[in-house]
Parts: sequence; C-alpha cells; structure tokens
Amino acid sequence: MTDSINTIHIDLGERSYPIIIGPGITRNESLERHISQRNVLVVSNETVAPLYLEQIVNGLGNRLVESVILPDGEAYKNLDVLNRIFDGMIEAGFGRDCCVVALGGGVVGDMAGFAAAAYQRGVALVQVPTSLLAQVDSSVGGKTGVNHAMGKNMIGAFHQPEAVLIDTDVLTTLAQRELSAGLAEVIKYGFIRDAEFFTWLEQHIDALLERDTDALAHAIRRSCEIKAEVVAADEREHGVRALLNFGHTFGHAIENLQGYGNWLHGEAVGAGMCMALDMSARMGWIDEQAKQRGISLIERAHLPTRAPANLTTAQIIELMGRDKKVMDGQVRLILLKAIGQAVITAEFEQHVLETTINSALDA
Amino acid sequence: MTDSINTIHIDLGERSYPIIIGPGITRNESLERHISQRNVLVVSNETVAPLYLEQIVNGLGNRLVESVILPDGEAYKNLDVLNRIFDGMIEAGFGRDCCVVALGGGVVGDMAGFAAAAYQRGVALVQVPTSLLAQVDSSVGGKTGVNHAMGKNMIGAFHQPEAVLIDTDVLTTLAQRELSAGLAEVIKYGFIRDAEFFTWLEQHIDALLERDTDALAHAIRRSCEIKAEVVAADEREHGVRALLNFGHTFGHAIENLQGYGNWLHGEAVGAGMCMALDMSARMGWIDEQAKQRGISLIERAHLPTRAPANLTTAQIIELMGRDKKVMDGQVRLILLKAIGQAVITAEFEQHVLETTINSALDA
Repeated sequence: MTDSINTIHIDLGERSYPIIIGPGITRNESLERHISQRNVLVVSNETVAPLYLEQIVNGLGNRLVESVILPDGEAYKNLDVLNRIFDGMIEAGFGRDCCVVALGGGVVGDMAGFAAAAYQRGVALVQVPTSLLAQVDSSVGGKTGVNHAMGKNMIGAFHQPEAVLIDTDVLTTLAQRELSAGLAEVIKYGFIRDAEFFTWLEQHIDALLERDTDALAHAIRRSCEIKAEVVAADEREHGVRALLNFGHTFGHAIENLQGYGNWLHGEAVGAGMCMALDMSARMGWIDEQAKQRGISLIERAHLPTRAPANLTTAQIIELMGRDKKVMDGQVRLILLKAIGQAVITAEFEQHVLETTINSALDA
Repeated sequence: MTDSINTIHIDLGERSYPIIIGPGITRNESLERHISQRNVLVVSNETVAPLYLEQIVNGLGNRLVESVILPDGEAYKNLDVLNRIFDGMIEAGFGRDCCVVALGGGVVGDMAGFAAAAYQRGVALVQVPTSLLAQVDSSVGGKTGVNHAMGKNMIGAFHQPEAVLIDTDVLTTLAQRELSAGLAEVIKYGFIRDAEFFTWLEQHIDALLERDTDALAHAIRRSCEIKAEVVAADEREHGVRALLNFGHTFGHAIENLQGYGNWLHGEAVGAGMCMALDMSARMGWIDEQAKQRGISLIERAHLPTRAPANLTTAQIIELMGRDKKVMDGQVRLILLKAIGQAVITAEFEQHVLETTINSALDA
C-alpha cells in the first residue's frame, strides 16, 4: 500500500491548476490550502453527502460554508435542478468572490461546475470527485454542463477549476457497478493514446475490480496524466481533445434512448467503445485480434459490450446526428488505427456505420 | 444627414471584433460579410420580429435560417424562456458550427448571447441591436445572461460576438420611452469618462429626442468608442469596467423591487444616476452645481430622477447587498469625483448611503 501523494499539473497558462491524488487528502490540509475564499458552497448529492459532507465542511475550517444537496442521478442533470444551486448561492448572499466545491461524481461535478461558470458570470470552483469516473475523467479539463431532453451535455461551459482533489480513500464506498463504469473511461485512455497502459490494464483489471489500492492509484494517475496532456494541447476541443470521446458518440445515443440513468454513462461508453472497435475493424484499420483484445477487456471490467436490443439502428443514427462533433451536417467518429492510436474521421461510408450498429443490436 | 458607415474595433486579442455603425447596414452586404456560418438561428421578440425579421432573413441569402421569437420584456429574461432558444437550436439540428443572431433590444441580446455561450459550450454570435440602449451598451462587450427571481443578470457568461451591426435606421420605429431609456446609458458615458461629451449632450439632448440623424449617429459612435476602450482594458470586470455600472447598483435594486418590466432598465438607471450624483455631492466629491447639471440633463431626457415612493430604504439596501460588485460583504459604489471622472469605492459611511436613499424616496 502506498500513501504517497501525487500532483499532476494541467498547463493552461493563467488557467493552470493542480490535480492532487492520494489517500485521505480530503482529511488533511489540502482543502484549506487550495480554497482561499471565505464563502464556500458545497454541492453534493443525496448519496454522497451523508458519507463525506461533514468531513469536507470540517476540513474547510473557519469559513461561511453552505451546501446544496441534489437528487442522485443523470436524470436530474438539467436546467431546473441547476437552478437550485443558483437559489442556494443567492439565498446565502454569496458574491463573485465565493468558491463552489463539487463533492460527488460526474453529474455533481458537471452541474456544480456549470453553476460556478454561470453564477455572476463566473466564480471559483474546486472539484472533489468521489466516483472513479469523475476522478479519471469528468473532474479534469473544465467541461461543465447539463443535459437537454434531446441531447446530452448540450448546454454548458468550459470552466476550469482552481484545483482537483482526488481522495482515493472514497472509492471504498463506491458501488461495484459505478466502479466498473469508471473503468470504462480508464480503459479508454489506453485505447486512444497508450498501448503500454492498455497492456498494464489487461494484467491488472482483476486487481482494479477488487479495489487494490496500488492498482487504483496507478490507474488514476496515468489516466489523469493522459487527460492533462490532451486538455493542455486543446482546451476547447478544436482538435485532439475530441479523441477523448472515443466510444462516446455511440454511447451518448444509447444513454439518451434508454433514458438518462437507466444505463450509467460508463456502461454506455463500454458498449460504445465495442461498437467503435467493431467499426474500426470493418474499415480494415485494426485486425480481428486487436478488436477481440479490446472487447475482452471491456467484458472483464463487467461492462456491457453490446447496445440494448430494444433500440433501432435508425434511432441511434438520428441521435448521433445531434452529437457535438457534427460539422457541416457530417457525423465525425473517433476510431482506432491501432490500440493506443485514435483518430477523428468523417471519412466512412454510411452503410459501414449502419452495419456496425445493426450488428451491435442483433439479439 | 450622413450616410457614412463607421467601424469601431474592440481590441481583445483573438476575441477582437468590429462594431459597424450606419444607416441601412442590415439591408446591405454587412450581414453576408460578417456571418460565415451556413446554419443561422435568429433570436428576436414579438415586437421586433414583425418589423425586421424578414429583412434579416433575406439579407442572409442562401443559408439554413431558423428563428425563435421570444415574448417582449425584461420579465421574460429567465432560464425557462432561455430554454426555448436551446429547443429551437436542437430541433433545427444545429451543431457547434452554427451562428446565433440577436435581433432586438437588450433583453434579446443578453438571452441570445447567453444561449450562444452555453449551447454545446459555445457557438458564434452576431449582435444586431434594435434599441438605442442595446446599440450603445448591452450589445457591445460580451456580457450575456438572464435574471434570477432574486437578482438581475445573476446567471450568465462573458461571450464576445463576432460582430455588432448597428443599423441607425431602426431607431425610427423605437418607442419614445425606449429612446429615453437608451439616452440614460449615453449620458452615463459622459458622466464616467468624457466631460466634453457631457457638454455636447447638454447642447444636443433635444435633437436626440427628436431623432436627428446626425446627432444620434454621433451619440452612438462616441458611446461605443468609450465602451470599446473600457472593455478592451478590462474584459472580465476586474477593475475599470465596473465604472460602466454608474447608477446601476441603485437602478438594479429599483428594477428588482418594482418587478422587471414595470420600469425600463434605462429609467431605473436614470433614477440611480441621480442618487449616485446626490451621494457624490453629500460626500463632498462634486459640488451642488455639478449635481444639478447632471440631474437636469437626466430630467431633460424624460427620465425619472427619483426612486418610486412605494419602496423603502431597507428594501433598497438589502437588494444592493446582492450586487455583483459586492466583495467581502461590502457594497461597492460607482461615484463621481467630477463630471467625466468616476471611481469605484467601498469607502463611504452607511448613514450617507441611507440618507441618499431616504432623500430619493421622499415624496
């Protein structure tokens, strides 16, 4: 077991910030050190707040701390629920000099982050992610937002936090299904950018599922390093950052059609990555063995590898047309040239896309 | 009569943009030149759309143009109505490569601007302001947002447009009350930064009210020049930009307490500027003659010079405590050291503020 603390820097000029990773860091002085504001609003949800809110409030010492507790789940990630955060900030009388602390998983981080982006046109934000998915992905990089009834993350902002504090101890209370969902994003980093990390994951997937502390610490650190590199190269997703969406164009369509919250985001990404692998193989970009290695790892992480059979190809294609990567009416997909090497492309034939989806739905 | 077209540049590095001012510029090639996107959403309101929407759509030539028409008035500047703009964009299938055109006054500009800031985390925006207030103030500088039930412009973003197209011909259809409300912001520029312009306004206020073309063109150009200087010096209001809020801290409290839409924004700013003048005089910063010159010009513009008598001092002070300029719990006010020279200050005694408000309410 390690109790070392790692710091990764996201290099974004005047918007640079540290990611602090380690056991127990929400119980030590990290909160005090990284939050300078006197007025703090902690945003959390009904599941996380009973476990960690008191600890965070105590860690903030002698400040004015208010909290807003949201219902738990992607189904509540909308403008109406967002408004409860604004209500809390205004009722507390908080001004532009306050700080929002996002204590929870990806939904809490995205909503608290967008609230911080928009309240009085922008206040400080510190992310304290409590799910594996939020720790390795959504808390890092400044994407915030809410869903629209007709599309995921359609309304939002780029708003970088002052710091991301990743306490690896909180994973002990994470549901097994949530752990697997987080592993989907971890595996994604191997697919898009690091074949060596992919091989490491093949060797350590069982240890990760058993919450081996060292294995989790390594997986989180390497995931955050890759995300930090990609975000520093392309903060606002004009280019390489889109690669982080590997599996997500298919996945978002599944999530939307199933109704947010029925499939976890990471589960939809798991199935979506299998579809992207299959399509990469159909285009002759990767061989059958690479495809099978990919699908096998996703399966071993206890993630779905196929789309829900109740959906239709036409439904999925229609939803994919609303993806944020669409340009001049053309869907753009992230596909693999090899494990460890992703590309964004609009150069595919529609019938290959349709065959891929048909095949993923085939019962 | 002039038909010269003036261009003022807002210098914000990669976010720089032109303000084009002139008669008939929404009927010439300016729209085509400044909007490169194939997909365009025009946001307007029930009052402006019947007058100018067709002209704008025709001017956009061979593109996919959709429109969303909002109800008219500050009372509708909220998250619920904002969502109608998102609905329109998603139903149209618009991606990140679309452009939002704001065709209307300050409310339309602020809402369409915030929708452009947040849709898919940011799309292009072109402002086509149709009220004097929007032409000289709200369309320039990138402030966007909506009101919260408990405070004005509490939710929003800084999102600079690609261009601001000011067609001075559209002022022929503006209601007289709206013209006066716009003059409040014009007069504000004289107070905060340009004593010579203030003197010019004293000489030309009647011509402006009679819509003299040359006088309006000069007033709009000089107002935009001052705004451009201030915004370029301080895009995100960390310093000098706050001076543009002269009269607004008092004014926002009046607007909120009267219910948005009962007093026009510019009317509340007129009364608010009189209160700021009175307080500047009570602090010994300006003399009685300067104060009277200021109040007299506001009165000649047919703007209110006093707060509504049904309000109480305690109500106004409570609302002022929610102003976005509050820092460490301390209200900060914009006051005058002289006509043409404003300062931001938290250095005032509470009883002077109370006396100022009491005196403005005194029936």
